[in-house]
Amino acid sequence: MKRSERLVAMTHYVLDRPRELISLPFLSENYKAAKSSISEDLGIVNKIFQQEGIGYLETVSGAAGGVKYIPAFSTSYSEQFVLELCRRLEDPERLLPGGYLFMSDLLGEPDTIRNIGRLLASAFADREIDAVMTVATKGIPLAYAVASYLNVPVVIVRRDPKVTEGSTVSINYVSGSTRKIQTMVLTKRSLREGSKVCIIDDFMKAGGTINGMKSLLKEFNAEVAGIGVLAEAEDEEEDRVIDDHVSLVQIMNVDDRKSKIEVHPGNFLKQTE
Amino acid sequence: MKRSERLVAMTHYVLDRPRELISLPFLSENYKAAKSSISEDLGIVNKIFQQEGIGYLETVSGAAGGVKYIPAFSTSYSEQFVLELCRRLEDPERLLPGGYLFMSDLLGEPDTIRNIGRLLASAFADREIDAVMTVATKGIPLAYAVASYLNVPVVIVRRDPKVTEGSTVSINYVSGSTRKIQTMVLTKRSLREGSKVCIIDDFMKAGGTINGMKSLLKEFNAEVAGIGVLAEAEDEEEDRVIDDHVSLVQIMNVDDRKSKIEVHPGNFLKQTE
Repeated sequence: MKRSERLVAMTHYVLDRPRELISLPFLSENYKAAKSSISEDLGIVNKIFQQEGIGYLETVSGAAGGVKYIPAFSTSYSEQFVLELCRRLEDPERLLPGGYLFMSDLLGEPDTIRNIGRLLASAFADREIDAVMTVATKGIPLAYAVASYLNVPVVIVRRDPKVTEGSTVSINYVSGSTRKIQTMVLTKRSLREGSKVCIIDDFMKAGGTINGMKSLLKEFNAEVAGIGVLAEAEDEEEDRVIDDHVSLVQIMNVDDRKSKIEVHPGNFLKQTE
Repeated sequence: MKRSERLVAMTHYVLDRPRELISLPFLSENYKAAKSSISEDLGIVNKIFQQEGIGYLETVSGAAGGVKYIPAFSTSYSEQFVLELCRRLEDPERLLPGGYLFMSDLLGEPDTIRNIGRLLASAFADREIDAVMTVATKGIPLAYAVASYLNVPVVIVRRDPKVTEGSTVSINYVSGSTRKIQTMVLTKRSLREGSKVCIIDDFMKAGGTINGMKSLLKEFNAEVAGIGVLAEAEDEEEDRVIDDHVSLVQIMNVDDRKSKIEVHPGNFLKQTE
């Protein structure tokens, strides 16, 4: 294979395997090239990934060394993407009764979901994470997008047990916004004890649902490794029970009667500054 | 930008935009290179994509011409992947009461989901498709995976309406396996009239749920452009109401008492032969 061809093949190979250690001897063997040539190739890939703002190659040295592709977004692209999200969400047509916001169209766009996933994953890039957890239904696509960039499995919590799932563990929790008692279930064999879990959801108001997932994790002796949400909203009547989260946007001053909302960047942009 | 650098950047660019027309003048402008050089580059990308079995570049000629990346899997890779799925699903530990099969672990693996999505998308690569539809909950990750390769939005049908969704259209349908009357709802603004829709689900027995989605599409004056499922199972008591689907695997001879199941390749492999 010529260098030009090898670069195309290797670019696809590393993009497909985020955070996975790809060893130099393997690449050398696979593409039938000297390790020194492969090293040069990886230098080019790394340079262009950084120029294009899609992440970088981390070098792992030693005998079993190689590279890991760490997905990320450049600060300027992150800002541009978050501001565009804010602009789209501020449309008063999205207001629903009760101060909720229609977001299903955005959450239905694979490239928007992928970019949100890449952003949230980059917020947790330096943490050890074994799985991503979310609760059905709307958080699911986001959770998969984050998981695909972290290269870990997804665990889905349900509101109701299903026959096709086997035995489950269930907990009751208090929903922050409606203050009702609700139930959450997770299939026993879907999460290993002691796992480090990143919780992802589309929307957070008082944080009751996320708090429920935290309680569920305790039942599995698992640990919270991070919490990420697309949008957070103020809840005037209830104190928030979650404060260690990352949010992309923040919904403020929802006025049902005047059909007005404000959407600002969440704490994600502040953290990367 | 040197050719070597351009190849890395362009490989990422086209991989990120399946089925989208990428014009030659745009690439030439963006990477500051003559159209003839860009054409040569695209030739290399196309050759390697085919060699690696991940699809090909379709050339669109004319003044507004360019290329489209069509994701696909080589036949040998498809076979290998489907046989591996069969082998993993045949584990008797997966048997649940009622002849159901535990699949949540597989459905939780982002790379497995991505490969299933790529396979199913390749089955519909030559059709005009505006959206992918599925029903909550377990079909959702598959639907997103297929949609990301078809580069179209996802529409999620629910079993229960939700306050954060706005006005909905609902239908009643008869579940094939349990013969109960069930309800399905879809938010009005989530699907445009006249859309061509690809239906995706994880599991099909008698086909009642998929038939329900077909009825729902009629309410939106939308068309079924294709039906794809990960697994189909025999239903001895009920005749199947769906027969124009693509399946990756087929579950047969489930024997609860003897803890035995057989999993064979579905009709997908036969179609690509």
